[in-house]
Amino acid sequence: MEYTKITADLLAQIKNIAGAENVFTDEDALANYAHDETEDLKFFPEVVVKPTNASEISVLLKFCNENHIPLTPRGGGTGLSGAALPIFGGILLSMERFKAIIDIDMESLQAIVEPGVITEEFINAVAEKGLLYPVDPSSKGSCFIGGNVAHGSGGPRVVKYGTIREYILNLEVVLPTGEIIWTGANTLKYASGYNLTQLMIGSEGTLGIVTKIVTKLIPRPQQSILMLASFAENEQACAAVSAIFRAGVTPSALEFMERKGVEWVVKYDGIRFELKDGVNAFLLIEFDGDDMDNIFKDCEKVNLVLEGFGCTDVLFADTAQQKEELWRMRRTMAESVKSNSVYKEEDTVVPRAALPKLIQGIKEIGSRYGFESVCYGHAGDGNLHINIIKAGMSDEDWQNRLKDGIIEIFQLTAALGGTISGEHGIGLVQKEFMSIKYSEVNLNLMRGIKKVFDPKAILNPGKIF
Amino acid sequence: MEYTKITADLLAQIKNIAGAENVFTDEDALANYAHDETEDLKFFPEVVVKPTNASEISVLLKFCNENHIPLTPRGGGTGLSGAALPIFGGILLSMERFKAIIDIDMESLQAIVEPGVITEEFINAVAEKGLLYPVDPSSKGSCFIGGNVAHGSGGPRVVKYGTIREYILNLEVVLPTGEIIWTGANTLKYASGYNLTQLMIGSEGTLGIVTKIVTKLIPRPQQSILMLASFAENEQACAAVSAIFRAGVTPSALEFMERKGVEWVVKYDGIRFELKDGVNAFLLIEFDGDDMDNIFKDCEKVNLVLEGFGCTDVLFADTAQQKEELWRMRRTMAESVKSNSVYKEEDTVVPRAALPKLIQGIKEIGSRYGFESVCYGHAGDGNLHINIIKAGMSDEDWQNRLKDGIIEIFQLTAALGGTISGEHGIGLVQKEFMSIKYSEVNLNLMRGIKKVFDPKAILNPGKIF
Repeated sequence: MEYTKITADLLAQIKNIAGAENVFTDEDALANYAHDETEDLKFFPEVVVKPTNASEISVLLKFCNENHIPLTPRGGGTGLSGAALPIFGGILLSMERFKAIIDIDMESLQAIVEPGVITEEFINAVAEKGLLYPVDPSSKGSCFIGGNVAHGSGGPRVVKYGTIREYILNLEVVLPTGEIIWTGANTLKYASGYNLTQLMIGSEGTLGIVTKIVTKLIPRPQQSILMLASFAENEQACAAVSAIFRAGVTPSALEFMERKGVEWVVKYDGIRFELKDGVNAFLLIEFDGDDMDNIFKDCEKVNLVLEGFGCTDVLFADTAQQKEELWRMRRTMAESVKSNSVYKEEDTVVPRAALPKLIQGIKEIGSRYGFESVCYGHAGDGNLHINIIKAGMSDEDWQNRLKDGIIEIFQLTAALGGTISGEHGIGLVQKEFMSIKYSEVNLNLMRGIKKVFDPKAILNPGKIF
Repeated sequence: MEYTKITADLLAQIKNIAGAENVFTDEDALANYAHDETEDLKFFPEVVVKPTNASEISVLLKFCNENHIPLTPRGGGTGLSGAALPIFGGILLSMERFKAIIDIDMESLQAIVEPGVITEEFINAVAEKGLLYPVDPSSKGSCFIGGNVAHGSGGPRVVKYGTIREYILNLEVVLPTGEIIWTGANTLKYASGYNLTQLMIGSEGTLGIVTKIVTKLIPRPQQSILMLASFAENEQACAAVSAIFRAGVTPSALEFMERKGVEWVVKYDGIRFELKDGVNAFLLIEFDGDDMDNIFKDCEKVNLVLEGFGCTDVLFADTAQQKEELWRMRRTMAESVKSNSVYKEEDTVVPRAALPKLIQGIKEIGSRYGFESVCYGHAGDGNLHINIIKAGMSDEDWQNRLKDGIIEIFQLTAALGGTISGEHGIGLVQKEFMSIKYSEVNLNLMRGIKKVFDPKAILNPGKIF
């Protein structure tokens, strides 16, 4: 697709619209916004704009429409699918100045928040008021809540509390054509026509730019227990996952970690943890609630289940510090792998009970193609993050043959009833794999919807399909 | 819009596609499918077709597309917004033969079910296996799960468990153009492009015909308590609702009933219940869980809250029979009002804490226009069903002035942050009110989406917008 390059004249107009102090073209700025957390990909924008309100964005989008300039919105830049990369240049719109928590409504248990608020800051702000906003992806310390909306984010507590879809009630959105709308209502239920709120969630900034977010909040559980269960085999740990739910309990987190993942965090993140011989897989299991006796009862039920799957050891984290350490182990796993190896990350999700087959298949495919993999993730949701490690693979094989291996992984995922991304999104890097799972008819529906919202294809072009 | 009338020749082709034994044109059949539960509205189809599989529907839709014949899908016919009324004649497609519960997967806790399964039958089938499917609208004994998907249904347990949106993982859909797709994946999470599953939910049969439904299931709580709290004033009961959540508890149901509503069920449904003087409003509150001690603790917390809002009496239903009777009172309320009066039903929803203002406003508007109202509903979600009763209003006022009163109710709802339907949908009867809440930009986005799916506007035309 051919887009207009930003000339000095157009740049002057952009400065006029957004204020010169909010427009950046220096090399550092362009470099800072040329990448997110997706592999080592780099695409440079021509201009970085940091607007401060929806009206500015509205005028800017109208301007982009008239002049056919691509505009790519960006949250915290923690994305893993390249959705925030300005692959056609143009304007990079950083939402970092939308930083207000506008209201925490203690009467209706709802909040209004701007998209540039860091997820953890929002979680802490509502926690101070005794409330829970349970959407906490591993990147919560730096990702923006607006980016979470764009990607339909999850995190470890989805297993009990659901994804961000269940907490977003209403969105203020600037459409690519410049109009500003509210997508729904500030209500827990909505049956008033097509659900534009749900359509925006997970649309990766291709349908509109979110400028205000209304969230649901829930009472905050007062107690929790975290346990780490050890297994000799990946498949045993994965098979235990679905059995836990069949025992009638719902953990507030249920994470899987391969031994290799723990090895990487021990090696690179300085986390102290004694890895015993013969232990090759872990489940990190959390229960929360208001009543400790009840939580213990759930733990007992789970213990019985775990025994049946060859669990060799269960460690209980009693203190806040112990809990924090175990969570840090899980949360820093991606980072330790990524910053220390050439890697590719996949985000497969399957029906919960298909996990053992998935992990077995990944290892088998890896052994045929010669790549290693570190697997971990939200096992309670059937969501497995796969860090593919170059290891002994030749540069040539990494460049040319790896893709076939990834295709096989996704074919397996699809055959098990799953899909190619559970929470990281499609963005740039997974788009070529969409056809493994979805028919051309599905993709054409998505393209058609895109065209309704963005007839000139100026908003985050080249993503998803 | 001009559609093709079904000639003898076209009818022969329809019989050829669907099988003569599945095509009905006799007066009785046409009359049976000319109405749903929406007021006394009647629109006669030209032909009723009862297909048995997705392929037949696919061929039929292609045929309708070629010949520009409107087709209106219908579930259990329990709709309250007229979404299943064939307002342009044409083909009425009844999904009543899609009756199979295809699979209840005890490993992954998912089910695959056809859209013509009666909701209660599905609830019971999974309950027998110790699982919970918590979407149980009052019409559960006769509505279809496919209709529930089409309307984004709720019911009393949304307050703890969420609407049907949180339980539908994947849908097989026949598009208006005849293609058959799966909208997503059989997974608890999905970040693989626009969420077509969520878009289908609540689209009222205007975007495609659902032929298979994949649902999430959860462990079934073993215990519950149901309590009925009495109040002197509507506003007190409504104000207590949001205070209950602030106390840190989440009931599994939290229903409001006006005294008048209880009077109607006592009078017409033969339910025995002693209505005390001075009692004008009720909250029906349910807690569920696996541990009775814990449930009692929640009840105690709620009791403390209720006292602060002038609750005069709390009745505990201990036995299954007592629970059943209280639930029957709530569930038959709509029916007792409707079958005994000229009425109109509205389905307002607001942020929870705005309920007192909403009900106060409704009564004030009613007193100005001369209509009475019976209000009840899912107060925990801020969702209030309003049965407007003709009472002493003249026929002329009922015909001509009532609409202005309804507009005022919806204006108030919108001003409180709410919307014009929480779970009944827009269909035919609420469509003229959409512009009270939603801008022309919103509606045009919906129209644009409709056109992507249904370029010739043959599927359930004339609904929503």
